[in-house]
Amino acid sequence: MHEIRTVEASQHVGEMVQLKGWLHNLRRLGGVNFIVLRDGWGTIQAVTEDDADLAPVADLALGSVIRLNGLVIANSHAPGGLELQRPRIEIVTPVMETPPLPLNKRRLNAALPTLLDHAVVVNRHPSRQAIFRLASGVMAGFRATLTDRHFTEIQTPKIVASATESGANVFKLDYFGRPAFLAQSPQFYKQIMVGVFERVFEVGPVFRAEPHDTARHINEYVSLDVEFGFIENHFTVMRLLREVIAGIFTYLTDNYAGDLALLEATLPTILPEIPHIHFSDAQELILQKHGFDVRGEPDLSPQDERWLGEWAMEEHGSDFLFVTGYPMVKRPFYTHADPDRPEYSNSFDLLFRGTELVTGGQRLHRYADYLAALEKAGYPDEPFETYLEAFRYGMPPHGGFAIGMERLLMQFLGLPNLRLATLFPRDLNRVAP
Amino acid sequence: MHEIRTVEASQHVGEMVQLKGWLHNLRRLGGVNFIVLRDGWGTIQAVTEDDADLAPVADLALGSVIRLNGLVIANSHAPGGLELQRPRIEIVTPVMETPPLPLNKRRLNAALPTLLDHAVVVNRHPSRQAIFRLASGVMAGFRATLTDRHFTEIQTPKIVASATESGANVFKLDYFGRPAFLAQSPQFYKQIMVGVFERVFEVGPVFRAEPHDTARHINEYVSLDVEFGFIENHFTVMRLLREVIAGIFTYLTDNYAGDLALLEATLPTILPEIPHIHFSDAQELILQKHGFDVRGEPDLSPQDERWLGEWAMEEHGSDFLFVTGYPMVKRPFYTHADPDRPEYSNSFDLLFRGTELVTGGQRLHRYADYLAALEKAGYPDEPFETYLEAFRYGMPPHGGFAIGMERLLMQFLGLPNLRLATLFPRDLNRVAP
Repeated sequence: MHEIRTVEASQHVGEMVQLKGWLHNLRRLGGVNFIVLRDGWGTIQAVTEDDADLAPVADLALGSVIRLNGLVIANSHAPGGLELQRPRIEIVTPVMETPPLPLNKRRLNAALPTLLDHAVVVNRHPSRQAIFRLASGVMAGFRATLTDRHFTEIQTPKIVASATESGANVFKLDYFGRPAFLAQSPQFYKQIMVGVFERVFEVGPVFRAEPHDTARHINEYVSLDVEFGFIENHFTVMRLLREVIAGIFTYLTDNYAGDLALLEATLPTILPEIPHIHFSDAQELILQKHGFDVRGEPDLSPQDERWLGEWAMEEHGSDFLFVTGYPMVKRPFYTHADPDRPEYSNSFDLLFRGTELVTGGQRLHRYADYLAALEKAGYPDEPFETYLEAFRYGMPPHGGFAIGMERLLMQFLGLPNLRLATLFPRDLNRVAP
Repeated sequence: MHEIRTVEASQHVGEMVQLKGWLHNLRRLGGVNFIVLRDGWGTIQAVTEDDADLAPVADLALGSVIRLNGLVIANSHAPGGLELQRPRIEIVTPVMETPPLPLNKRRLNAALPTLLDHAVVVNRHPSRQAIFRLASGVMAGFRATLTDRHFTEIQTPKIVASATESGANVFKLDYFGRPAFLAQSPQFYKQIMVGVFERVFEVGPVFRAEPHDTARHINEYVSLDVEFGFIENHFTVMRLLREVIAGIFTYLTDNYAGDLALLEATLPTILPEIPHIHFSDAQELILQKHGFDVRGEPDLSPQDERWLGEWAMEEHGSDFLFVTGYPMVKRPFYTHADPDRPEYSNSFDLLFRGTELVTGGQRLHRYADYLAALEKAGYPDEPFETYLEAFRYGMPPHGGFAIGMERLLMQFLGLPNLRLATLFPRDLNRVAP
């Protein structure tokens, strides 16, 4: 008897197999009975005309854990072209209560708070499984693309002595009686590690105490961080980012065809060179095209980003658009200025279908420039002392970026809320499950 | 002109190349000058009899960032059998101050606090680079072994509503005016995710507010977590763990030969079946062999573990030893008891060279068992409500383990302190750098 996973059934046509998983569905249709089993990778249907075959689960709720034996038969009418015949069910863990939401419907129909309250069970739905299997693929594709380019993976501390981006919006911690913070990003550490490995990446949690209550913000998320040395300017960084994005989607296409089909995902167009527009030109464009004068605003609004995303698709046929040269006033102190127009920065955002997905750019790399930047920002040097050591003892021109993993999934899959791309989201009101 | 990394030089013998990195060493030996460049992957030596070649760096400190052009020549007397001739140095980032510790000596000779205070620069030393490159290999080998076995990678939240293992030793957080905690382990979430994917793993930070001040404890570390369903008992888990450990070391051997040589690492002996001894037998053994009666103690001391490690090597020629069946009183509430001797558990520790490296075991999987276990432990159900949902709606027998990544490196490399296996350690007194 072969013990197999649902997705392996096609290799065992004509054989008796055993599967294990959850009783996903049970239907009695005029003399024919269908049993659907879900495991960690998919579902499979068993069919029988003998009611006695169902006897073991007759008094149990869906969700009971079972072993299912049967003969694998090719049947073009069955989902996936396969079904099990002569099923024999063994109960592993009986369940008495029906799940808080039906998991055997094609779509999960419930309001967002219900979905989130019961995420423990809701994430068992095939559509939720598929999203988070893609999440694992995003991480794997990210790592593979960078490892191929000789980047080294790092894990940097999440408990930190000083806030990185800004003193506000940082979670405070009692660290053995002293104050400490949760890292808003691995920014300082990934820069420091350029001094060690030249090219580094990290996949890890970041924490933002922003009191936003929007569909596209959460307070803990997975950041895909990259930093590397010996760049010319932010365009070097943008070229790598394009390769990383392409690498991730190639990885998903190569390894997750079933999940992409189930979620009806539309693969984005990634041009050989992703179009880019300077921040000031983007504002001019919005004025010309939409009659809104946002010139002088130091940042783009979500509406601005949507307009620019539409323009990138119309004008270039691109799902992605780089906006470069954000004003220095809105960028953190370590940002490198544009040498020709120092009020603008050598930084960028990457918009994906009209929403910011990635922020990146060139950083300062000279010790003296850091001292000047801190002074200009009105920050004392002392909290940054160990960070500054990296620059004091030699750093090359460098830059990097950070991709929000859940943002990428949300935009790719067209999910209406970032929380739906997050296993167990943390927001203003939610720290459980 | 080929732009290459140090480790690629052997493929370019007879060619002019450009390298970029840090000025690692400069030696003038009676008419012959040696220039050593360090990059993110290694070092390479250039040689010249012409003092003028050194002119660009004459007034600079070691650690200056440079580009180095030269002709690659095979020379059996040179380190690595290669050197550059006709070097031409270009300054990228000049450095004026010598580093706080000399990085160009074979060994870093400084007291631990100095090494940790200056970790930003100290981690640039080739021996430190090698340790943390191996860390990236441990993660990659761990993931590869599990992905081959159809495990899905997950990322679970680090800000949590309730402590997992015990209420003590957990970092408290101000979460928008409410209390929250830092996850001591992904235990609850990885179990919950067995309900989704059956087989899961996670690589991520865990946080322990333990006021230990020992050479083998830190307060934030990287945990390599595994959990999977449809096990028979803890021996199923131990068999997988053996494969994972073997997979990690095979991955290191296959991909990091240079680093293993530089660190003079001794590969551990991993027998086809790692020997195991029951907790109570281990205590008897200690009495017989060493005359110390630790029977009745609910746990093993570090000395007990060292003795058992010695015994495993003498008796079995094994660097690893499973100790099974720890008393239930010292194991968390979700631990599955030994059905035959319910005062002992279906859990284990894996000792590596006489130190605990992994803890794991079988967990409870029936809802009613959880209610009983919580009552027995004197815990209220309410903080565990969403965790309990997983069991209420069907969970298979399951188990897993957690490997401390830094512990693994410390034991493998024979480092005297866990902090030396950690990029930027967090302990009772240290949150920076």
